[in-house]
Parts: sequence; C-alpha cells; structure tokens
Amino acid sequence: MEFDLKPGERLDDLQTKDLRIIQSDEVFSFSLDAVLLAHYVTLRNRDRVLDMGTGNGVIPLLLASRSELPRRAGIVGLEIQERLADMAQRNVSGNQLQETIEIVNGDLREAVRHFGHESFDVVTCNPPYRPAGIGDASLNPHVAIAKHEITAKLEDVVTAAAKLLKYQGKFAMVHRPDRLADIIALMKLHKLEPKRLLLVHPRAHLRPNILLIEAIKGGKPELRIDPPLFVHTDDGGYTQAILDIYAGRGEFAR
Amino acid sequence: MEFDLKPGERLDDLQTKDLRIIQSDEVFSFSLDAVLLAHYVTLRNRDRVLDMGTGNGVIPLLLASRSELPRRAGIVGLEIQERLADMAQRNVSGNQLQETIEIVNGDLREAVRHFGHESFDVVTCNPPYRPAGIGDASLNPHVAIAKHEITAKLEDVVTAAAKLLKYQGKFAMVHRPDRLADIIALMKLHKLEPKRLLLVHPRAHLRPNILLIEAIKGGKPELRIDPPLFVHTDDGGYTQAILDIYAGRGEFAR
Repeated sequence: MEFDLKPGERLDDLQTKDLRIIQSDEVFSFSLDAVLLAHYVTLRNRDRVLDMGTGNGVIPLLLASRSELPRRAGIVGLEIQERLADMAQRNVSGNQLQETIEIVNGDLREAVRHFGHESFDVVTCNPPYRPAGIGDASLNPHVAIAKHEITAKLEDVVTAAAKLLKYQGKFAMVHRPDRLADIIALMKLHKLEPKRLLLVHPRAHLRPNILLIEAIKGGKPELRIDPPLFVHTDDGGYTQAILDIYAGRGEFAR
Repeated sequence: MEFDLKPGERLDDLQTKDLRIIQSDEVFSFSLDAVLLAHYVTLRNRDRVLDMGTGNGVIPLLLASRSELPRRAGIVGLEIQERLADMAQRNVSGNQLQETIEIVNGDLREAVRHFGHESFDVVTCNPPYRPAGIGDASLNPHVAIAKHEITAKLEDVVTAAAKLLKYQGKFAMVHRPDRLADIIALMKLHKLEPKRLLLVHPRAHLRPNILLIEAIKGGKPELRIDPPLFVHTDDGGYTQAILDIYAGRGEFAR
C-alpha cells in the first residue's frame, strides 16, 4: 500500500485488520473515542452510512473493517476542513478502500442540501465537545475546529442527523457525559429516540469521561444502558474489553 | 419504643441508627431503591423536604437519620393511600420522630394546592415504575398503586416537583434505567436541570437496574455521572459500598 504523506504527517498503524492511517499532531489525530464509536454503532449489511465531521477518515476506515458491511458498502465521510478532507482521501486511497468509502469536503449544516433528506441508514458523529471560545484561541485553527463547537454545535449535529436519516435509521454519537442531558433532550426534540447508552470510565472507581449513545429515528421510548466499560485496569494497562475492541473482537454486548 | 401493629404487619429493623419500621407484604414493604434514594439526595441543614408517595414512610425515616438534618427538620411524607399513610404515621410515632416528620394523606397531583408553590427546598420520590395496565390486575390494589403508574404517572411526578420546589431547590428520584431518556426530557421541559446521575448495577458485568437522579430547579446544564455502584460481589454477597450505605456511612461521592 502506498500512502502519500505531506510535511508534518506520519503514518500510524490503526491496529485493526492491517489498516494504516495518516495523522498529524498539528492538524488531526484520532482518539479512543473514534475507535469506540466505530465499533459501537449498529450496522447491517447494505446500510448506507454517513460519518459527519470525519477528520482524517478514521471512523469510515474502521467501519469498512466491520464484518457486517460488505466490501463495497456505501460509507461517506463528510469533513468541513479542506486539509483534513484531503488527508482522509489519501487514507482511503492508501488503504485501497476507494470502492467502499467516499470523502466529501463540506459542512454538515449543508449536508441535507448535498445528500438529500432521508438518504442514510446510519449516521455517526464524533463532534467537537467543547463550547466555542473557551480555550480555543490557544490552539491552531485546525485543532480548534475539531475540538470546539466552532463550525458545528451539538444542535447542528443532531438536527442534521435527524434530517439525513431514513425512518428507523440509527444515529450514533460519542460525546462527554456532562452533556448527556442536553444530548437526550435534543435527540427527543428531533424525534431521534435514544435506545442504547454506554458509559466509558478511565478506571472502575472513576467517573465516566466518554459516552456512546445510539438513537433510532421514530423509535419507541426505551433506553438500554450497557454495563460500564473500563479503559484501564488498576495497574494502568488496558482492560481486556478495550484490547478486544481494538482487535475488532469487541462486541459491546450486541 | 412502642409500635402499634395491625394484622398482617410485621416490625423490621431498618438497619440504620436503631430505626424500626412497620411493613406488610400485603400492602407495602420498602426496597433497596428507597434506601439508596434517602442516602443519595443532597441535604443541607434547615432544608424543608417533601417525599412524594412515601408509602410506609421509609424515606422520611431515613432522611431524619441523616447527619445534615437537625432533629427538628421539616420533613413531610405525602401518601395517597389511607392505609399506607396510617402505617407511615405509626412508623413516625413508633420511632418518636413526630417533631421531625409530618405524614399527609393526599394526592401528589393536588400537592401544590395543599402546600403552595415553591414551598420546599428538596423533593424526593420513589414513584411507581411500571405503566398502568401491564400486569397490575394480578396484584392487590395497594401493591398495584405503589408499583404501577395508576395514581401518578412520571409526568405528574415531575410536574409536581417542579411546582413545589423553590428556585435552586433539588429534586431527587429513583427509577428504572430504561426510562432515563423520558426522565431527562421531562425534567428539562419543566426547568429541572439534571445535575447528578448514578447507575446501580446488580453486579459489575450486568446492566444497571436502578438509577438515581438529582435535578436543580433553574440549574445550569451540566450533568455529573458518578462511578457505577455495584450491589453484589461475584460471590453473591453485598459489596462494601452497599454495606456502607446501609450503615449510614455511604457518601455517594459527595
């Protein structure tokens, strides 16, 4: 596989099915959050999937490795930043996934106009977590847009997902636990019914710092909360559950 | 202490500060849920507290044992069923807590008329969990009213709490995790901002079956989710965390 690296970029092993990924600390590098989301979301064969705010394309790459999706599945990665959309495109080419993944350089707030209403079975998003204006001035603009609600607020993300999904389609998001009440209220407002929730704790005795949530458009109200997922054992290593997820064996109690 | 027992009733040890409690399997006996709620809710000295749907008064009795409340605190227990309100009153007298706890026989849907708007600092509720009509016909009417949404639906409970609480007052409830999305949406609709959430799992690897949530009237959106609480160890005994709560040492990460 040939990857077209630009200055300041490096090639990392995605540790799943021989995938490799171009990253750059100056611009974007993926986190555990993206890996968890890509394995958490419910997929069915033939699902058409959109990842909003795809960054360097890490979520589409990992989705393409999921056994539920055929090799020629329709996965779209949407990214507002041209430099990141370009990096995502080179990741798709480098991993020879051009027939599976399409990268689109665009704004999720304009996505309905681009793709049409009810055009996807599944929408995923690992959005910026922090409100704009708090600490973002210290970051370079690429990182600021990825981490702060500058180009997409939580409500923009939920609104876009609600419009883009088919009836009974699934919206899966990773976010911070302190926003859970806002997330649930916004989802319900937009007829995305929260159906699954997973809280991820750094260690068993600590508060969760990541949440994964999946909603169904027009679903019946009934939320399933999964057993907690712990990232580290008390001695500091990864738990078996996390190692299994990285290895593509994680089942998230599906 | 003298307790006035009626036919079919028994006297149990509440296992906290020498409290004893009259119960009856025919009518009402408290569960772990009530014990958790009574220790979970945030209390300050001089708070005026209402427990809606108090049953045999277990929550007021346990609240009265909390060190934050002075012996002559104002705790009110509201119960719609006359037979249960009478049992609660006998529990108050038997434990010599007449100066601390008042039992009122009434309907929480009429509580604002009875007590007035914004008349409490704290409202607690361990409401019926199950929708009316599903399996309630097999129960005797006392148990059916306590367990099914016959005389109080979730929205009635949240609406009443929102009206009865002072600005910045706290509403704490115990419920089932599958209702979390409905609970949060209703709370937000009524300006009760969810601020604390605790999920209680039967064992570490199982899904939660109890949730505790505390909202602040007019609070700022930011939810703190606590580390998970596990009830049983793998060998079947109670965890130390649960034993501590029963012994009044539980701190719930306050």
